[in-house]
Amino acid sequence: MALIVQKFGGTSLGDVERIREVAGRAVAAQKAGNDVVVVVSAMGTETDALVALAHQVSDAPNPREYDVLVSTGEQKTAALLAMAIQVLGVPARSLLASQVKIHTDNRHAQARIQRIDGELIRGELERGAVVVVPGFQGISPEGNITTIGRGGSDTSAVALAAALGADVCEIRTDVEGVFTSDPGLVPNARKLARVSYDEMLEMASLGAKILQTRSVRFGKQYGVPIHVRSSFNDKEGTWVVPESEIMERLVVSGVTYNRDEAKITIFSVPDVPGVAARIFVPMSDAGVVVDIIVQNVSTRGHTDVTFTVGRSDLTRALSLAERLAEELGASGVESNDSIAKVSVVGLGMKDHAGVAATMFQALSDEGVNIEMINTSEIKISVVIEEKYTELACRTLHDAFELDKIVAQEEVL
Amino acid sequence: MALIVQKFGGTSLGDVERIREVAGRAVAAQKAGNDVVVVVSAMGTETDALVALAHQVSDAPNPREYDVLVSTGEQKTAALLAMAIQVLGVPARSLLASQVKIHTDNRHAQARIQRIDGELIRGELERGAVVVVPGFQGISPEGNITTIGRGGSDTSAVALAAALGADVCEIRTDVEGVFTSDPGLVPNARKLARVSYDEMLEMASLGAKILQTRSVRFGKQYGVPIHVRSSFNDKEGTWVVPESEIMERLVVSGVTYNRDEAKITIFSVPDVPGVAARIFVPMSDAGVVVDIIVQNVSTRGHTDVTFTVGRSDLTRALSLAERLAEELGASGVESNDSIAKVSVVGLGMKDHAGVAATMFQALSDEGVNIEMINTSEIKISVVIEEKYTELACRTLHDAFELDKIVAQEEVL
Repeated sequence: MALIVQKFGGTSLGDVERIREVAGRAVAAQKAGNDVVVVVSAMGTETDALVALAHQVSDAPNPREYDVLVSTGEQKTAALLAMAIQVLGVPARSLLASQVKIHTDNRHAQARIQRIDGELIRGELERGAVVVVPGFQGISPEGNITTIGRGGSDTSAVALAAALGADVCEIRTDVEGVFTSDPGLVPNARKLARVSYDEMLEMASLGAKILQTRSVRFGKQYGVPIHVRSSFNDKEGTWVVPESEIMERLVVSGVTYNRDEAKITIFSVPDVPGVAARIFVPMSDAGVVVDIIVQNVSTRGHTDVTFTVGRSDLTRALSLAERLAEELGASGVESNDSIAKVSVVGLGMKDHAGVAATMFQALSDEGVNIEMINTSEIKISVVIEEKYTELACRTLHDAFELDKIVAQEEVL
Repeated sequence: MALIVQKFGGTSLGDVERIREVAGRAVAAQKAGNDVVVVVSAMGTETDALVALAHQVSDAPNPREYDVLVSTGEQKTAALLAMAIQVLGVPARSLLASQVKIHTDNRHAQARIQRIDGELIRGELERGAVVVVPGFQGISPEGNITTIGRGGSDTSAVALAAALGADVCEIRTDVEGVFTSDPGLVPNARKLARVSYDEMLEMASLGAKILQTRSVRFGKQYGVPIHVRSSFNDKEGTWVVPESEIMERLVVSGVTYNRDEAKITIFSVPDVPGVAARIFVPMSDAGVVVDIIVQNVSTRGHTDVTFTVGRSDLTRALSLAERLAEELGASGVESNDSIAKVSVVGLGMKDHAGVAATMFQALSDEGVNIEMINTSEIKISVVIEEKYTELACRTLHDAFELDKIVAQEEVL
């Protein structure tokens, strides 16, 4: 008998019919002999609607009240799903974060989970109930409702799985697993059987919208096996596991892209110590998240600094950059919001030379110009013109022969 | 400095614009030097939508989960209103039933309030905050969310006012107070300046949809002055107060009507001891709420029994009545759902003879036939054909000269 935590996203819970289907899956898992805890998101786009309401009421909604408001979405789904499971003849009970005791800090709207009591849930499981927990929410030391940031239900699920010592945390979603690239863009993309936490982390932060980065970090930290699989069928999905459990490391296991960024260049900045801080500390203070930073070698005491920011932050970041450029005596500022970041990710890069060379050559052969480059131990990212996104993804997918990885599927 | 509990209904909180107006009223009350606690209903018809969802999921939704679900409506409004008050520069904080500690029994969906802790609210008031409490909800001894029945926010407000020793509980609604009759039906209806708890109770249970009966009972029990007034302006409304505070008792202070009932007659029931029980115990067991019961004097050992039930219960009550009639050897069953109950209510009836006579004569003069009569110490109800409702109300309003009561308005 295993303990399974299943998390279902908003699309899988969009209407009553889908809630019934989810109830069916939870009950099937229980009838197969498992203890089952289900973590739910809000129905469909309900969270967006609640956030919109908050912003209609206030330009800067009070964070404490914001959390009281937006947490109602998941509470609603949890109650409906518990009812739907009961209709199938299985005892079920919703337990809110304040009842479970999902302790967080008090940073409203972006709280961090600190400790979860498992007692109440274990009691319910022992009496044969399926427990339904609204994701995304917690409770502060002061006893106030907190939420843990958009998409936080993944993190809630993995954290609950860790706290309960679950055998698996299933992330049920509208795709069948983690693919070598976005199948919408790269038709011959393949589903990966296994992927390491680190690869998943890179893929998630590089644009793959399957799992929330924080949930993967949690999974890695506590060694929770995560199984990303479909909400709509029972096919095996992708297991996210420790690196030690990956038999055969792929040099590259995925090609991801992100079109949500924009690029800013400050030209001819006097290259003196502390100049980077004078640009990026104010950016950070203004809440602008900077991703890639490239600084060219200095020529005649001056350097060009280029960096990327979220596209929605561009206006703010640009006017700040213009002010800073003036203060620093730079020659000018330029921006471009028609860029894309395309990345290849793979554990095998650690051991294999030549990945960068293969990547750059493949792109060059297709005439795709590389504007910026950023690397880490297991990924290489390039910034290119946005219109080449699809071409670049397909080219790289072929160059690393990702359509040929069948061996992994057969491991299981 | 007074402590005011203000309750706003769903119509007054139907959209963001109205929530802003309500925020304005709460802030105005505070700026006038008062401590202010606001109790809110769900926005507009949100509760109906949540109840409909529950019934889509299950024919008989689990009551515990039903409460988790429907309580989200008020939680949402409470958070939005707290934000809107903050926008006006005044500190505000929503406190859920589980935070305030509004203790109820564990009869889900129809829980009774048992005890309210005032401490947390008093602390917030002391630091100058407006406290916003979602109505309708409580917490069971087991720590589960409960709700106290439809329209329960009135009761929440009065109970909170009692627990906090508030100087007044304002019920802010879409009418300007309690009128001598429904102004929609009787154009010269007048607003009452004061009405006693008992009169208000009778009016509420006889069809005036201004205040929930339970809230009036609570107010009477704990001596909470209730001020029924408009959500949209600051005119004096109607004070609901102890009988001892009513200077001049009106013989009749209101004419109410109810078109939600239907009538069932069982003909020629053998008149033996226990026969009423054999009809009405099964009705009660089946959850049918019976209002008026009339049993004629027995002729040759048989009697006709007529009673009214809620119109929505008619089909169920009728088939039950037919089965019972057969068991009891009655001669037949008849029903009519085109009836109305018209009532006159007034404390002064206690001292004045002839109210019934005036009532019956006035109706007779207009050719309105009386089908059933029911009386209590301070009210007389008659059941008539539904099509005469307006005529009967106007006739009685004139007969008791209710359009002439101006003196009371000037008392204040």
